[in-house]
Amino acid sequence: MSSLSVLPPECLLQPFPVPQRLMLGPGPSNVPARIIAAGAQPMLGHLHAETIETRNRVTLAVSGPGHAAMECAIFNSLEPGESILIAVNGIWGERAAEIAERIGAKVNTVVTSAGGYFTNEEIEQALDKYRPVVFFLTHGESSTGVVHPIDGIGDLCHKYNCLFLVDSVAALGGTPICMDEQGIDIMYTGSQKVLNAPPGTAPISFSERACQKIFNRRTKPISYFLDMSWLANYWGCDDKPVRAYHHTGPVSSFYGLRESLAILAETGLENSWKRHKEVAEYFHKGLEEMGLKLFVQEKKARLPTVTTIVAPPGYDWREITGYIMKTFNIEISGGLGPSAGMVLRVGLMGCNSSKANVDKVLEALADALKHCHKSRV
Amino acid sequence: MSSLSVLPPECLLQPFPVPQRLMLGPGPSNVPARIIAAGAQPMLGHLHAETIETRNRVTLAVSGPGHAAMECAIFNSLEPGESILIAVNGIWGERAAEIAERIGAKVNTVVTSAGGYFTNEEIEQALDKYRPVVFFLTHGESSTGVVHPIDGIGDLCHKYNCLFLVDSVAALGGTPICMDEQGIDIMYTGSQKVLNAPPGTAPISFSERACQKIFNRRTKPISYFLDMSWLANYWGCDDKPVRAYHHTGPVSSFYGLRESLAILAETGLENSWKRHKEVAEYFHKGLEEMGLKLFVQEKKARLPTVTTIVAPPGYDWREITGYIMKTFNIEISGGLGPSAGMVLRVGLMGCNSSKANVDKVLEALADALKHCHKSRV
Repeated sequence: MSSLSVLPPECLLQPFPVPQRLMLGPGPSNVPARIIAAGAQPMLGHLHAETIETRNRVTLAVSGPGHAAMECAIFNSLEPGESILIAVNGIWGERAAEIAERIGAKVNTVVTSAGGYFTNEEIEQALDKYRPVVFFLTHGESSTGVVHPIDGIGDLCHKYNCLFLVDSVAALGGTPICMDEQGIDIMYTGSQKVLNAPPGTAPISFSERACQKIFNRRTKPISYFLDMSWLANYWGCDDKPVRAYHHTGPVSSFYGLRESLAILAETGLENSWKRHKEVAEYFHKGLEEMGLKLFVQEKKARLPTVTTIVAPPGYDWREITGYIMKTFNIEISGGLGPSAGMVLRVGLMGCNSSKANVDKVLEALADALKHCHKSRV
Repeated sequence: MSSLSVLPPECLLQPFPVPQRLMLGPGPSNVPARIIAAGAQPMLGHLHAETIETRNRVTLAVSGPGHAAMECAIFNSLEPGESILIAVNGIWGERAAEIAERIGAKVNTVVTSAGGYFTNEEIEQALDKYRPVVFFLTHGESSTGVVHPIDGIGDLCHKYNCLFLVDSVAALGGTPICMDEQGIDIMYTGSQKVLNAPPGTAPISFSERACQKIFNRRTKPISYFLDMSWLANYWGCDDKPVRAYHHTGPVSSFYGLRESLAILAETGLENSWKRHKEVAEYFHKGLEEMGLKLFVQEKKARLPTVTTIVAPPGYDWREITGYIMKTFNIEISGGLGPSAGMVLRVGLMGCNSSKANVDKVLEALADALKHCHKSRV
C-alpha cells in the first residue's frame, strides 16, 4: 500500500492532440462550434429539461448512446415472456432482436434483404400472425441506406393492440417523421447524427398509450439505470411533486444536446428536411454521373442522411476509405452488418448536409478511384 | 405530415446561460478549464484508450455514469440464480441489491447502521454462511461519509472462492486503494467525482480471476450495451485482431476523462491521497471548532472526499443548503438514502479539495447558522 507498483502510462503525461476531420461517415458527425461551446459551460448539479417536438409528456434524454435508448425502449415496454415482432432490414433490427432475446421476450422477426423494406400489407400479415405486444421498426436503416415508410403502420399496430416502436437514430431531423400524427408510441434517436451533438445522450419519447403499458407493469424492468418510472420522475415528467435522485446525468452533454435542439428549432424542421433531401439528391446525381451505383434502387426509399453506394467492382473498399481518410482527412465508411463488404457509406447529417461537402466527397471519391488499385473485374 | 402541429418550445430560442457555482456537494464536482478544453476538441470517430493504474488487461470506460458501471459489473459477473452477498452500509449497497434482484440473482445482504462499517470477521462470517459467487462492497459510501477498510477482504473472498467487487465511485483518487495488491477483482468509479471530468463515463477494471468468470459464462449477460465480451473487444482489451463496432462511445467525454487522468498522473496518486486527507482533516477541525458534529464517530472511517455533518439540531437542513446556494453560490447537500434528514454533506474532491474551499464553506456554514431559523431544541 505504501508505494505504487504500476506507474501511470507515459502517454498520459503527453498532450493529446486531436486532428480536425470531416466526419462524413454514418456518425458521429462533426460538432458545430456553438454546440461545443455549450458543452464547455460550467458544471451544474441538475438538469435543464429540453424537449423534442411532440405532445408527449414523457419525453427525455437517456444518459447514454443510442444503444442505451434501444435497451430502454425494449426493457420498459416488454415483460418477461411477452412477444415482440421485429422488422429486420439491416443491423438495427438484428440488434433489437438480440436485446429482446436476452431479456427473455418471445421474439419473432420479418426479414427482408439489405436495401429492401416492408409493405404495410407484409407488416399487417405479420402482426396478424404473431400478435405481438410491441412492433419494432427502424426508420433510418443506416447500414443499408433505407428510409422506411411510416404512414399507416401506427394504425395497423393499434388495430392489433400493439405498441409501435421506432428507431430513428440515423434519421430524426433529416427526414420527415411525426410521432403523434403517425401513431408512433415509442421513438428514440441519438445525439450524434443529424443533431450534431457529441455522442452520449439519446432523446426518447413515449405516447400516452405507451405510458399506460410501461407504468402498469407487473414486474420491474430488468435495468434500474434505464427504468422509466425512475427516469420519468428524474426528468420531472410525472405528477410527483419531488424529483428523486436516480443517477448523475451527463450534464455537459445535455447542454450540448439542448444547443443542438435550439439550432434545429431555429432552422425549422421542415427546412432541415428539405435541405437534407436536396443535398442528398445532388449527391446521388453526382455519384451516378461518376458511374457509381446507388445501393438502394428505389429513389423514395433512399435515406437522405446516410447514402449507401455499391462498392466499386474491382476495388478493395478498405483501400478507398483509407485513401480518402489519409489524403483528404474525410471519414467515410464501409458497410455494416448485412451490408458489410457490399457498400461504401457516406453520411451528410445536420451541419454536414451541404452541397460544399458533397463536392468535397465526390472529388475525394473520384481521386480514390483513380489512385486505388483496381483488379480486372 | 405537411405542417407541424407542435411548435418548438420558446425557451429553445433563448440563450441558455449557466451560472458559475462552487460544487461542494457529493458530486458532480467542478471541472477544471483544462478538462473542459479537452472535451471541446474536434469530434473523432474512434477512441483513444486511456487506462487507470492497474496491471489488469481488461480496463476501460463504460459509456455511461457510475450506475451504468454498477450494472455492468453485476450483469457480467452473475448468471441467473447465482448468489451475491452485498454489504449494505448506505445507499450504494441498497442499489446494488436492487440491481442484482432485478436480474434474478440470489441476493443476501449484511447490513449495518448509517455511519458504520464491517469488520473482516463479520465479512468472513457472512461469506461462510452465504457462499456467494460475488461480494459487493462500497469503498467510499458517499451517503454516510464512510471510507470502508479494504485490507484483507480480497484474501477472504478468494478463500471462499468468490469475486471481490468494489464500488469506488466517490473515493478513487482521493483515498488509498490498490486494486492488484488488495485482491480486488472488479472495481469501477465515476468520472465526475475526484477525477473532476464531466459525468457520463465510468472507468471499470476486471482482474484475471474476474475475466475467467465473465468470459466463460453459460448465458449471455442481460444487457447487450453492457456486455463485457463486446466492450473488451471494442476497447482492444482482448486478443482479437479486429475491433468490432459495438456502440458509439461518448468521444468528447472520453477526451475529458483522459485529461482528468493525465492531471492525476501528473499530481501523483500518493500526493492526491495526501492532499485529500490533509484538507479533510483541516475541514473537520474547523467544523468541530464551530460546534458542529461529524456524523462518522471514528476518525479513520471518515471519507476524505465527502464529509457528513450531523444536521444542526433545531434547524431545517433544507433551509441551510438553500441559504448557502443562494447567498454564496456554493452547492452542499443533505443526506441520501439511509442518511436522509440526518446530515449535511460536503464534497471536497479533486480540484475542489483545497484549504481555500474549506475556508469558504466554513464561512458559509457559520453565516447560515446565524441567519437560518432556529427552533428551540
